[in-house]
Amino acid sequence: MVRQEDIEYMRRAIELAERGVGFTNPNPMVGAVIVKGGKVIGEGWHERCGEWHAERNAFRNCTVPAEGATMYVTLEPCCHYGKTPPCTEAIIEHGIARVVVGMEDPNPLVAGKGIALLREAGIEVVCGVEEEALREQNRVFLKYISTKLPWVAMKTAMTLDGKIATRTGDSKWITGAEARAYVHELRHRFMAILVGIGTAVADDPLLNCRIEGRGVRQPIRVVVDSNARLSLDSQLVKTAGEYRTIVAHTCFAPEERVKALREIGVEMLLCKEKEGLVDVRNLLELLGQSGIDSILLEGGGSLNYTFLSEGLADELYAFIAPKIVGGMNAKTPVEGAGMEKMADAINLELENVLNIGHDVLLKLKVKN
Amino acid sequence: MVRQEDIEYMRRAIELAERGVGFTNPNPMVGAVIVKGGKVIGEGWHERCGEWHAERNAFRNCTVPAEGATMYVTLEPCCHYGKTPPCTEAIIEHGIARVVVGMEDPNPLVAGKGIALLREAGIEVVCGVEEEALREQNRVFLKYISTKLPWVAMKTAMTLDGKIATRTGDSKWITGAEARAYVHELRHRFMAILVGIGTAVADDPLLNCRIEGRGVRQPIRVVVDSNARLSLDSQLVKTAGEYRTIVAHTCFAPEERVKALREIGVEMLLCKEKEGLVDVRNLLELLGQSGIDSILLEGGGSLNYTFLSEGLADELYAFIAPKIVGGMNAKTPVEGAGMEKMADAINLELENVLNIGHDVLLKLKVKN
Repeated sequence: MVRQEDIEYMRRAIELAERGVGFTNPNPMVGAVIVKGGKVIGEGWHERCGEWHAERNAFRNCTVPAEGATMYVTLEPCCHYGKTPPCTEAIIEHGIARVVVGMEDPNPLVAGKGIALLREAGIEVVCGVEEEALREQNRVFLKYISTKLPWVAMKTAMTLDGKIATRTGDSKWITGAEARAYVHELRHRFMAILVGIGTAVADDPLLNCRIEGRGVRQPIRVVVDSNARLSLDSQLVKTAGEYRTIVAHTCFAPEERVKALREIGVEMLLCKEKEGLVDVRNLLELLGQSGIDSILLEGGGSLNYTFLSEGLADELYAFIAPKIVGGMNAKTPVEGAGMEKMADAINLELENVLNIGHDVLLKLKVKN
Repeated sequence: MVRQEDIEYMRRAIELAERGVGFTNPNPMVGAVIVKGGKVIGEGWHERCGEWHAERNAFRNCTVPAEGATMYVTLEPCCHYGKTPPCTEAIIEHGIARVVVGMEDPNPLVAGKGIALLREAGIEVVCGVEEEALREQNRVFLKYISTKLPWVAMKTAMTLDGKIATRTGDSKWITGAEARAYVHELRHRFMAILVGIGTAVADDPLLNCRIEGRGVRQPIRVVVDSNARLSLDSQLVKTAGEYRTIVAHTCFAPEERVKALREIGVEMLLCKEKEGLVDVRNLLELLGQSGIDSILLEGGGSLNYTFLSEGLADELYAFIAPKIVGGMNAKTPVEGAGMEKMADAINLELENVLNIGHDVLLKLKVKN
């Protein structure tokens, strides 16, 4: 039975879990709190993929023996040998009396078996506390574990009149410094950043993660470049030795281009073609198979339309700058062929509106 | 000297003033509260252009004689004979001891003379309480009285990807029912609605104000139609007998078209031309001279760009619907030639973000 204090401690465990954001992928973020005699005696979180799970970190930080204590953990403890030994063993060994689990682990290797094992060992287990918040916190993991496709977050930045550049293509800058800093926070959260060759050519971006004052995980940079046109002089290619860089191409790409890019250190990823272009669904499957659980899609308009119209985008971070540039021919965040009827529009659900510096950020989920 | 309670009563007067919104134009909204012995003994507001001012309405509603009382009034009392006799007379006659004025009336016929008259009569006068809020409440009046140009509020409604229609021109509906109802509230607030001939042809709109359950003021409908192309079968022309309708045209409009529209009841307004089209600055001057203090500009993209690039728009109501339609050629809220550089963008200042049904409304002021 859920007790009054369970919610409070679970919220603390969720807070701890969040500290792992960007570092745990493709693992979930997990937090754990150990409570004995009404006092927190240990806290921990999964800090980085391949390292200790939240439960074991909480035990390591315990100030007194955990025997008879209650453990709060956001995700069902694992019961299988992965990169680390099963957490259920540690919980049983430490003599924990009660385990409050935020949500069941949908990973087929766990999926209720962890809870069953604890109960068999005579431990009281409660499951399902703050589950809605946890589903949101681990939305990337939940999609990836069940579909093997990466979670795709689309990021756009436009003016109040829907432009991502002026009629001449000038786009420096649409949003202010604070919004651009926020994008680097996003880049830290997603395992890969994906752009189309149009954007790569137009902006010659670096697409790395630059945040001052703390450690970050550099995202893998992926360019959808059906014909392997990316210049050897581009910033992306020149820094391929420093940051992992993938060029997704089709069988139509000239062999010498593929070879030249590969030799300079770019990973060349041959994808199925669809109407002569990279089949983005196949691309996502291949990226998912290689362990990439999350992608920040940074456009342009043609690639954004392809992802959206094929139902492959999961959420949208839409920055809106308080300025207007006009222009019949200025580019917009989503282009392609476009829908015929307004009633055919792709619908999203608004989750949050934030003021970031002078700009507005709308966070939305795509309704599928 | 301003007392603690002055702010509270002035806020009440501002609330009362707001009840006149849409009905007082081209007069300002004004509210008044009479306080005696710590109790409100009378309240009033300017209800409708041509009717009694707020001060006189407050006296009429007084429950006890106002002698020795304090009057709070949002705008300096008038001292001239307009459609009604001067309020300063009434204040003196009723024996008011103290008058707290929100802000001075910039109308050259008043402009401090009202306050001076009251002081000469031995009344204590304090001026400048909640002035910032009052400048906002009467922004239309303040621009109009000083420039004789109408205040121009631009209204746009677009998708998350900056489209005001799909590639085929379908625009029904971008926003939800609540946002569309809100637009009718806006239409009540502005004396005229202005559209371009492109929008008039594409949408065949009625452009009236439809709000259930309460009285509204129907806005004057203005179409910028350089060559007087508006169809005699359009909804606008067919209802010209019911709602005042103005077609702004140039000297290049065929005489027979001008005559045909005039005969059917449309007011034909000959404007100066600029590059063959209606010179919108001249149009605003003419509308201002005819007593129109405020305009809701409902597009489309070409007209919006003209207003913005000529510095004639004052504020923006930007509705954003949580949907995406894509399309390289789909129309956007502001088009025209467009700026060359992002640094040349027209800057706005975000004032408010509202959730209206499923849609978002950004309210902004144009920085001039």
